[in-house]
Amino acid sequence: MGPTLAEVGEGETLKRIFPRLPHADAELLGPGDDSAVVAAPDGRFAVTTDLMVHGPDFRSAWSSAHDLGVKAAMTNLADVAAMGARPTALVVALAAPLDTPVDVLLGIADGLRDGCGLAAPGCGVVGGDLSASPALMIAVTAFGDLEGRAPVTRSGARPGDQLAVAGDLGRAGAGLWLLFRDGVAADGTPDAARAGEVRAAHPELVAAQLAPVVPIALGVPAALGGATAMLDVSDGLVLDARRLAVASGCSVELDPAAVDLEARALVALDPAVGDRAASFVLAGGEDHALLATFPPGPLPEGFRRIGAVLDRSAAPEVLVGATPYAELGGWDPYAGWTGAAG
Amino acid sequence: MGPTLAEVGEGETLKRIFPRLPHADAELLGPGDDSAVVAAPDGRFAVTTDLMVHGPDFRSAWSSAHDLGVKAAMTNLADVAAMGARPTALVVALAAPLDTPVDVLLGIADGLRDGCGLAAPGCGVVGGDLSASPALMIAVTAFGDLEGRAPVTRSGARPGDQLAVAGDLGRAGAGLWLLFRDGVAADGTPDAARAGEVRAAHPELVAAQLAPVVPIALGVPAALGGATAMLDVSDGLVLDARRLAVASGCSVELDPAAVDLEARALVALDPAVGDRAASFVLAGGEDHALLATFPPGPLPEGFRRIGAVLDRSAAPEVLVGATPYAELGGWDPYAGWTGAAG
Repeated sequence: MGPTLAEVGEGETLKRIFPRLPHADAELLGPGDDSAVVAAPDGRFAVTTDLMVHGPDFRSAWSSAHDLGVKAAMTNLADVAAMGARPTALVVALAAPLDTPVDVLLGIADGLRDGCGLAAPGCGVVGGDLSASPALMIAVTAFGDLEGRAPVTRSGARPGDQLAVAGDLGRAGAGLWLLFRDGVAADGTPDAARAGEVRAAHPELVAAQLAPVVPIALGVPAALGGATAMLDVSDGLVLDARRLAVASGCSVELDPAAVDLEARALVALDPAVGDRAASFVLAGGEDHALLATFPPGPLPEGFRRIGAVLDRSAAPEVLVGATPYAELGGWDPYAGWTGAAG
Repeated sequence: MGPTLAEVGEGETLKRIFPRLPHADAELLGPGDDSAVVAAPDGRFAVTTDLMVHGPDFRSAWSSAHDLGVKAAMTNLADVAAMGARPTALVVALAAPLDTPVDVLLGIADGLRDGCGLAAPGCGVVGGDLSASPALMIAVTAFGDLEGRAPVTRSGARPGDQLAVAGDLGRAGAGLWLLFRDGVAADGTPDAARAGEVRAAHPELVAAQLAPVVPIALGVPAALGGATAMLDVSDGLVLDARRLAVASGCSVELDPAAVDLEARALVALDPAVGDRAASFVLAGGEDHALLATFPPGPLPEGFRRIGAVLDRSAAPEVLVGATPYAELGGWDPYAGWTGAAG
């Protein structure tokens, strides 16, 4: 894998990283000074930050460096898009063990470039920081331009609205299930060779987990199309729908026929999901699809209806058809992580 | 120390943290949605990001949680102030081991509040992320308002300019030296009880290292006062002066009498520094003083002259009097960190 960070040093590593990073059209002053300067034409900016840590958030035996860059970009871009904002720029703070090959950092940089290029052309990296650490970690902060519009929050859903989604549901969760089932050694440790076989056999599901591509470009059309509330599905459809319901003081009903359609599409994509398909659709996290509510009428292109907002303000909840859906789903790193890395 | 993160969980921990965080006047939409929204009245924002990791960047035996919050805020605020911008907001991504007491995170939140309150009133935390990790780490991204002015970069110094500084020189480096000398057990491991004794005996120097207070408010007056270049002294006076010199294509001469005055002030503050004083002034890092160049004439209040910019564009360098200063100083986490924590 070539020389390590300890051998190459901070300054030289940064010199190799910078030319690979994507340029941001909004960059007024780029890396190299104490701060960067970014354009915010409407006098405001949207900002979100998200941290990926080796162990709880990814396994090096499963994710390539390029995967990590793509995912770090995408998860943050989704949080910008979910406000109805156009992503403009990222800053990236990265810490890695001293024996990390410099090539790993270059692979992450390439993944950031390709993630931005695929999902948010014109968005790029305007600054960063590099540090040493016992574990590889990537902290991305992303910025967006609201272009004069009000931000689309979680709290604007109203009874009678349609609930709609853009992007995949269940794929990333199914990919993670396959990796935990088949991408491990006999003792349960993540295993690179086995994960490679899983990925070859189930490319869409595993890629959705390790290097998701989210329809970031649909965030702005959603806002323009009258979205009353929006968030990205990071922890599972039901859990994130419940967040929207609670913030808006309404209940949300998922249409059983629509859920069934999603589940059948997942089975058609990869029969390996079998009868778990509906459960992945409802409770699988990390797809980062955009979940939004719209007034009655045609939906913006790319969104499909999966339910409705109901007037049950006393006890906001999520129903599938007439049945409240109690299972929580989602991911609490403080409850769910055993301390294992791999 | 009370319950741990694993016992309390992510959601409840966030609920306890949020009310302690400082409010930002520039906050248009605060925590709780996919992104925050921050005001950027002149259509631009300055942004910087900096990572502090347990081990290479701090020792838990030396720094209290409150210290960490103050330092994380201050190092980032200094990078904003050094552009001539007024700090407006922070986002904070924090990762900690599962067995970390929740009180540690609350202490960090209090330190962020007090750091902002002391150095940049009106600046606050608008968002964040919480994750699990094998090592405690804090990634802060800070924003600033240039209020219509051009950013003060590192590259604008011109021959004939005065070199001036606002804030401490050498204190943080001297504090670190004392901690490494006396704040350790017999085997060299950082030791909390001994560090407490060092701090009681040398309060100014140790506080300058662990919880620095930087004259953030002097960044804007420096810009208004005509600063041609500016940066914060994070890695030592000579090393950062050299960065300014290289970026500006000039050389920088430090005035031996001014350096001597700084060294004598350091000895007067704490005689323990002894004959190392000049070396701390020249090469001690982490004071985060503002180092700026100004055209001839009166300096803005709070700045003191320590040298001049020379016309030696062929080979930018830093001289002390007539003598080139070769020692590098500074801190490369990939070369300087042994992997020890403590």
